[in-house]
Amino acid sequence: MGVASIGKGTNDQILSDIAAKRWDRLRQQLPGIHPSDLSDLIAALAPDDTSTVFNLLPRDLAATVFPYLPHERQEHLVHSLTGEKLTQIFNDISPDDRTRIFETLPAAVTQRVLEQLSPEELHQARDLLAYPDDVAGRYMTPDYVSIRPEMNAAQALDHIRVAGRDKEMLHVVYVIDEAGRLINDIRLGSLVLSDREANASEIEPSPLIAIGAMEPVENVIAAFEKYDRVALPVVNTRGEMLGIITADDVLDLVEQESTEDIQKIGGSQALERPYLELGFWSMVKKRGGWLSVLFLGEMLTASAMGRFENEIERAVVLALFIPLVISSGGNSGSQAASIIIRSLAINELRLGQWLRVFWREVGTSLALGAFLGLIGFVRIVLWQRLHLFDYGPHFQLVALTVAASLVGVVMFGSVTGSMLPFLMRRVGFDPATSSAPFVATLVDVTGLVIYFSIALVILRGTLL
Amino acid sequence: MGVASIGKGTNDQILSDIAAKRWDRLRQQLPGIHPSDLSDLIAALAPDDTSTVFNLLPRDLAATVFPYLPHERQEHLVHSLTGEKLTQIFNDISPDDRTRIFETLPAAVTQRVLEQLSPEELHQARDLLAYPDDVAGRYMTPDYVSIRPEMNAAQALDHIRVAGRDKEMLHVVYVIDEAGRLINDIRLGSLVLSDREANASEIEPSPLIAIGAMEPVENVIAAFEKYDRVALPVVNTRGEMLGIITADDVLDLVEQESTEDIQKIGGSQALERPYLELGFWSMVKKRGGWLSVLFLGEMLTASAMGRFENEIERAVVLALFIPLVISSGGNSGSQAASIIIRSLAINELRLGQWLRVFWREVGTSLALGAFLGLIGFVRIVLWQRLHLFDYGPHFQLVALTVAASLVGVVMFGSVTGSMLPFLMRRVGFDPATSSAPFVATLVDVTGLVIYFSIALVILRGTLL
Repeated sequence: MGVASIGKGTNDQILSDIAAKRWDRLRQQLPGIHPSDLSDLIAALAPDDTSTVFNLLPRDLAATVFPYLPHERQEHLVHSLTGEKLTQIFNDISPDDRTRIFETLPAAVTQRVLEQLSPEELHQARDLLAYPDDVAGRYMTPDYVSIRPEMNAAQALDHIRVAGRDKEMLHVVYVIDEAGRLINDIRLGSLVLSDREANASEIEPSPLIAIGAMEPVENVIAAFEKYDRVALPVVNTRGEMLGIITADDVLDLVEQESTEDIQKIGGSQALERPYLELGFWSMVKKRGGWLSVLFLGEMLTASAMGRFENEIERAVVLALFIPLVISSGGNSGSQAASIIIRSLAINELRLGQWLRVFWREVGTSLALGAFLGLIGFVRIVLWQRLHLFDYGPHFQLVALTVAASLVGVVMFGSVTGSMLPFLMRRVGFDPATSSAPFVATLVDVTGLVIYFSIALVILRGTLL
Repeated sequence: MGVASIGKGTNDQILSDIAAKRWDRLRQQLPGIHPSDLSDLIAALAPDDTSTVFNLLPRDLAATVFPYLPHERQEHLVHSLTGEKLTQIFNDISPDDRTRIFETLPAAVTQRVLEQLSPEELHQARDLLAYPDDVAGRYMTPDYVSIRPEMNAAQALDHIRVAGRDKEMLHVVYVIDEAGRLINDIRLGSLVLSDREANASEIEPSPLIAIGAMEPVENVIAAFEKYDRVALPVVNTRGEMLGIITADDVLDLVEQESTEDIQKIGGSQALERPYLELGFWSMVKKRGGWLSVLFLGEMLTASAMGRFENEIERAVVLALFIPLVISSGGNSGSQAASIIIRSLAINELRLGQWLRVFWREVGTSLALGAFLGLIGFVRIVLWQRLHLFDYGPHFQLVALTVAASLVGVVMFGSVTGSMLPFLMRRVGFDPATSSAPFVATLVDVTGLVIYFSIALVILRGTLL
């Protein structure tokens, strides 16, 4: 048995039912398919069939499927469904999913939907929307069950049987006092196992873990990783319970944070939307910004090269190895930067450990640089000996210059690449912003200076 | 001496020693018998004597003998030996024998092995089960409660109150038939809410999602993201339940997979251990491997430059912009590669969408290249006009050459960087291996050819 719960056969059969307008049969069959697979199926239909099929779904299933649909299908549905149907669906969608939908839909569409919501629903949606998208409050849902501290286990279970009807998350229930303050959280399993007379608030002996609504998203992720919970409660500064964050939302957050880091490390702004859904000019803007900054930095190479124009004129052979030398510095810099950025992001490294990392990188890059230098030296001497290329009478000195420069740029690249993320964090920026291309550009400029300085020392009196 | 190393005499004598409980003598004698004969001898004993004799064997001999025993004896031993002894034995059995044993034993026995182990031993047991570390089986735990399909809700809850005592995960319970096959999973919340008389297996209407034990880790992550569950059951090919994977383990997996991707995108092998815990030479090896490959590739730039040595000699001014031009290609390539690698990793993009991405990149990179080209053109003309640098009488043609080359390398970089990850996946490699530095190196070499080819066209008759 694989992960898919729907086979190709079922899929084909449903499609032919739609083509043949066998609505009754579809009305019976569709609820048997997992919402997630159902959304895949609906997304693959022609836009007009989307609303037809959607209208065949029972109300709660429609609400479950909607958040899974691609944005353009959601938009299409918002416009094509009746106001009544739309209200029903959005009333039933869980508040945190709703928030995410509103975030991605155009404002006019959001507006149209908000107008359809019931007053209480509207209140919840507005509450959630007010939090910035990098804090805990943005990702909570009020979809939980609370019990009172004076209840015993049996009373708590009776209460859950009533209050839990329309709630998505029953794995954990929350003990809240009269003032709305969160006292404890209790796994439903513990409640079921406990003595019927046991006081509810004392059933779960483990200390309460709660997240402040303004806590940054990274701390939310860290808390879930540390405490292995399926949900954590969110409280305001007065300790009053506002909602819960569930593990599946945190899973999405972790993916999203890693995606942003990878895009930043790659030298782009975070795209914030799937590749094919991002508009053309947004894509150009998000990538062009950093690319232009890097380009302006890279212009310094032209200035640096300009200062060594005479040396290049006298020894053109030196120019041949410029890309080799500076790229090797760039590559080792990108490598070190990516590794350190990630280690800082997942708290494997702390700010205070920068000095250990510094010495570690000095040692590692010395070994790496020496190895590359050796290959470079052998390559030049070998090509000369095998008459593959003529590097002139002083080819051994040229080879020595390249080799020594490689050691220099690899060391400079690795140390810069590893220290810059620490520096970024220290001054309060995201370390991922010290992207690999940024480090590479920095190392390109310095690499040229290192290369020509070493050349001036080794080749003085011969080529220069 | 014949083929058999144990004669009928020895055999009888050992049997009489067992009957007379002469343990010390047996302890001395048994290690002298060939494992294969020993297993024949043990297989011939009464079941209860099997475990007694087995306990007399030295640890390594026990591990050698175990795989030779008939299945029902293996099964018997799994039930009768202590957890500690079992761990010892399974630790010492060679991994492929272990795989074979677990493949052939019924799921219930595998279950039993896992249940006997303490929490720390459980960690080892995942190794013992011999699943590769990139498949679902490696990450499952036996810490769940199962119920029978014929139970009603009240009976199921009663059963959970007893069986759930020492279980960590009670959020979901599993309906398993007599043959050990998984029928359905039911959230404890649904059980609590349901009618006491309702048939347990029909309480949760949503279709069962189960993961095959040999399913790759990426599919496990995808399943959790798609179905928003706190746990998913793992089954063997016969549909028998082996264990569950919990959301908090998946959270760790997601972090781990992203870390590996970031390290690969940065041009290193996956480090597989925290930065400061990795040994010096392991670090050098994991980073030096790719760095050397990239260096060898980068050597082609020296060859490419060699072919244009005459042009550089005639127009040294061209050399000044080499780093600027090739790095811009490298930066746009790294950017595109990182974005596409990540989109493929999280299934935002599918293999079949490569052509859409291709055209998207052609358009985006044309805009980006034109913008950078414009900045470059203005920079050169401005520096000349402001007398900051003298690019010679044909500075406008030089500026045009640089601008046109920038359009060319940015387009080549973006398209190569975006298509290579698709190609990698197509041929069955990890797209992350087409790391940003790899793309940058590829683009460096081509960038030089593009630059000098354009120069030859634009500057022919003036500088060249």
